[in-house]
Amino acid sequence: MSIAEAGEFGLIARVVARLETGPTTLLGPGDDSAIVAAPDGRIVASTDVLVEGRHFRRDWSGATDVGHRAAAANLADIAAMGAKPTALLVALCAPPDMDITWAEDLASGLSAEASLVGASVVGGDMSSSPTLTIAVTALGDLGGQAPVVRSGAQPGDVIALAGRLGYAAAGYTVLSRGFRTPKALVEAYRRPSVPYEAGPAAARAGATSMIDISDGLLQDIGHIAKASIVGLDIHSGAFEVPDQMRDAAQALGVDPMQWLLGGGDDHALAATFPAQTPLPDGWRPIGRVHEGTGVTVDQKPWSGPLGWDHFR
Amino acid sequence: MSIAEAGEFGLIARVVARLETGPTTLLGPGDDSAIVAAPDGRIVASTDVLVEGRHFRRDWSGATDVGHRAAAANLADIAAMGAKPTALLVALCAPPDMDITWAEDLASGLSAEASLVGASVVGGDMSSSPTLTIAVTALGDLGGQAPVVRSGAQPGDVIALAGRLGYAAAGYTVLSRGFRTPKALVEAYRRPSVPYEAGPAAARAGATSMIDISDGLLQDIGHIAKASIVGLDIHSGAFEVPDQMRDAAQALGVDPMQWLLGGGDDHALAATFPAQTPLPDGWRPIGRVHEGTGVTVDQKPWSGPLGWDHFR
Repeated sequence: MSIAEAGEFGLIARVVARLETGPTTLLGPGDDSAIVAAPDGRIVASTDVLVEGRHFRRDWSGATDVGHRAAAANLADIAAMGAKPTALLVALCAPPDMDITWAEDLASGLSAEASLVGASVVGGDMSSSPTLTIAVTALGDLGGQAPVVRSGAQPGDVIALAGRLGYAAAGYTVLSRGFRTPKALVEAYRRPSVPYEAGPAAARAGATSMIDISDGLLQDIGHIAKASIVGLDIHSGAFEVPDQMRDAAQALGVDPMQWLLGGGDDHALAATFPAQTPLPDGWRPIGRVHEGTGVTVDQKPWSGPLGWDHFR
Repeated sequence: MSIAEAGEFGLIARVVARLETGPTTLLGPGDDSAIVAAPDGRIVASTDVLVEGRHFRRDWSGATDVGHRAAAANLADIAAMGAKPTALLVALCAPPDMDITWAEDLASGLSAEASLVGASVVGGDMSSSPTLTIAVTALGDLGGQAPVVRSGAQPGDVIALAGRLGYAAAGYTVLSRGFRTPKALVEAYRRPSVPYEAGPAAARAGATSMIDISDGLLQDIGHIAKASIVGLDIHSGAFEVPDQMRDAAQALGVDPMQWLLGGGDDHALAATFPAQTPLPDGWRPIGRVHEGTGVTVDQKPWSGPLGWDHFR
């Protein structure tokens, strides 16, 4: 059945049936607005949009995968403030002839990813559109902690990373060359594995700045360098290229460091910590903050592409 | 300059420059997430999406108008819970060849409409897309009041209305027939005039249910009938057709009651109140809740179109 045949309210009913409600949802889908617990008295909020052909392809990713990825991209932004995600709102624009099961499976993926952190899909909107588009807003709670912003890095701080880099970019390259394996890389592109807990853990440990790596490590930590008015130097020796990634890179004629340092969509977290701070579980050092500006690799400018510009 | 020429970060900088920050914004655009005050300890949240060709046309509405309307549609959903809007997040998907001034003016319209209620645009996302799409999420604060949901209407309650009906639908019909006047109707379509204050006022006065009229009065109060398991009867005599609307209807061969009862996009608020409750300022009675189901007009089924289905 197409979504046009189901009609707006039929579609909403089918999609809402796929959602699980969690403890932070005070009023879920079905009214003018949702109501979400905000015990901290402040709400952390972030919006990310995925456009078919730009951020995903239906022949490369299933609807459930796209749901996981759309949720992860937003939930990671909440974690990168040191907050715990509580809710998602989703606007779905879809061609009227699209099969309703795609929208249902998308909802399942969104809900399942949100459930990983105790959050729920609490509301949304749907419209027909020639371009399949998914806009997600995530909300989160700081639990009494100060937010970790981009502007607090200090010279002498350690730069640390939680989560993996380069996997999604490698998977994207593999798919774009017409391959479907290695499966670990392709699956990483389809469903990022985000270190959500590492965000609040970094906040508790005293991280001075933090960011979600969505466009590429060097580009994204460039935002920390700019906001904090410091220089960031990455030690390439801190990155071991996994065997599978090295093999794929060789087969495809790619420098795997481009994936690691320039690839987005894994939604790792990068943060800075005062030099003497014991890094919390899941974090590893990858470089050092110094007086200056910009981002370097082994104290030299990086010659490869920095990351991703969504309008180029 | 096109938005592709400006690049993602150039575009963001130009758009953010158009935004005004209000007192509820603890951290505005520029980090992974925004942070908004939520003094009530609960957050009210709603998402609405506008798609070019479906919800607006660039030859009918200026970018600033579209910004006002996109904001109004969302802020009205917050007011309809009895809450006060605090923040907007906006996802903009735009063709890369679009002029950057359109995005800037959109931001001005969004910000100006939000300012009417003390809210601010606190964050968002942008992507290129073949289809110009604007997804807005609004947040709001209940200020200690219980939310007014759709399910609380009781037989014997008075149905009341705040704000105007039929203006936007009349303006839409005028534009769709190729006219640009009467100006009052066309302007009402371009920029709804939403009775935001009436929402929290209704909550304080003890409204038993409330809804934002976005798809048409009869369709939308049908949601109250269904959620509350009651019947709603509208008194047609409560609606005076304004002279300008009557003249336009006659010229275009339309029954103006179709605009009043079936037209959306004015974002009036409908609510139910216990019979003896003095209606707050701005509210007027338009009907009565009774035991039963569904919506009638003068105790008869309505023969015209009920409202708007976004997939048909």
